[in-house]
Amino acid sequence: MIPNPPRFTAEQLPVGEAVILGSHSVSEAEIIRFASEWDSQYFHTDPAAARESCFGGLIASGLHTLSIFQRLAVAGLFNHYDVVAGTEIREVRFLHPVRPGDVLVGAMHIGLVENDGRGRAAVVMTGTLKNQHGAVVLSLQMEALIASSGE
Amino acid sequence: MIPNPPRFTAEQLPVGEAVILGSHSVSEAEIIRFASEWDSQYFHTDPAAARESCFGGLIASGLHTLSIFQRLAVAGLFNHYDVVAGTEIREVRFLHPVRPGDVLVGAMHIGLVENDGRGRAAVVMTGTLKNQHGAVVLSLQMEALIASSGE
Repeated sequence: MIPNPPRFTAEQLPVGEAVILGSHSVSEAEIIRFASEWDSQYFHTDPAAARESCFGGLIASGLHTLSIFQRLAVAGLFNHYDVVAGTEIREVRFLHPVRPGDVLVGAMHIGLVENDGRGRAAVVMTGTLKNQHGAVVLSLQMEALIASSGE
Repeated sequence: MIPNPPRFTAEQLPVGEAVILGSHSVSEAEIIRFASEWDSQYFHTDPAAARESCFGGLIASGLHTLSIFQRLAVAGLFNHYDVVAGTEIREVRFLHPVRPGDVLVGAMHIGLVENDGRGRAAVVMTGTLKNQHGAVVLSLQMEALIASSGE
């Protein structure tokens, strides 16, 4: 059975509002560890070589940045709802480099919620991660199916 | 300096063709390890609870699936080129569940290559991951800046 019941259904989502998702500190060790396994380009894994790149130092993998967003979204939003599945991620934009020592804060704006008449709702959301200087480092749209009590 | 020179520039990309990216075997342990850190929803982390979900068993996180694609793309394509940065990921569709024991094969179709006149080219690519039954489990578009020798 689903752990930690009860969970909210799609009807409880704060449509039209933004949910603040908490924060995550990004260390050099985490940047190198993630990228060494999943995105081993030198500007993510090799601090000395990265200093010679156009970024002037190590930057986090975009996949790592996106995973940080998902981690915050699961803890701050999805694990309170009866999520059936994530179905799509759209328009993922890496707008600003993420560097060691950055502290990222997530937010998710709840957009369209559309019941499919079979006990599920397709939910369209817009997410952002900002760094400690207020710069948006990541923006994206997500679509997920969440259990619904309505028609 | 950039490791392992020389690298190809954008002019060497096989425009209009698909690059086969190699394969990756997905274990239950890897699914649980990735999701425990980045996407701890029960259907990614708890085999017993996942059996009660609509998927009937554990499935990989979409972020994990996307990271597997990036791992294959880096080894099979990006690390042979002088990549400046990934800039955007679009239309990421999770079309089929990824389960323990699946073997995923990646491919990247090279689309538009547009020089910016400042030594870089914006490259638009379409990627897919197929499982051992030939089903497309992931499709996406990526855009990256790659160093260019042209105008």
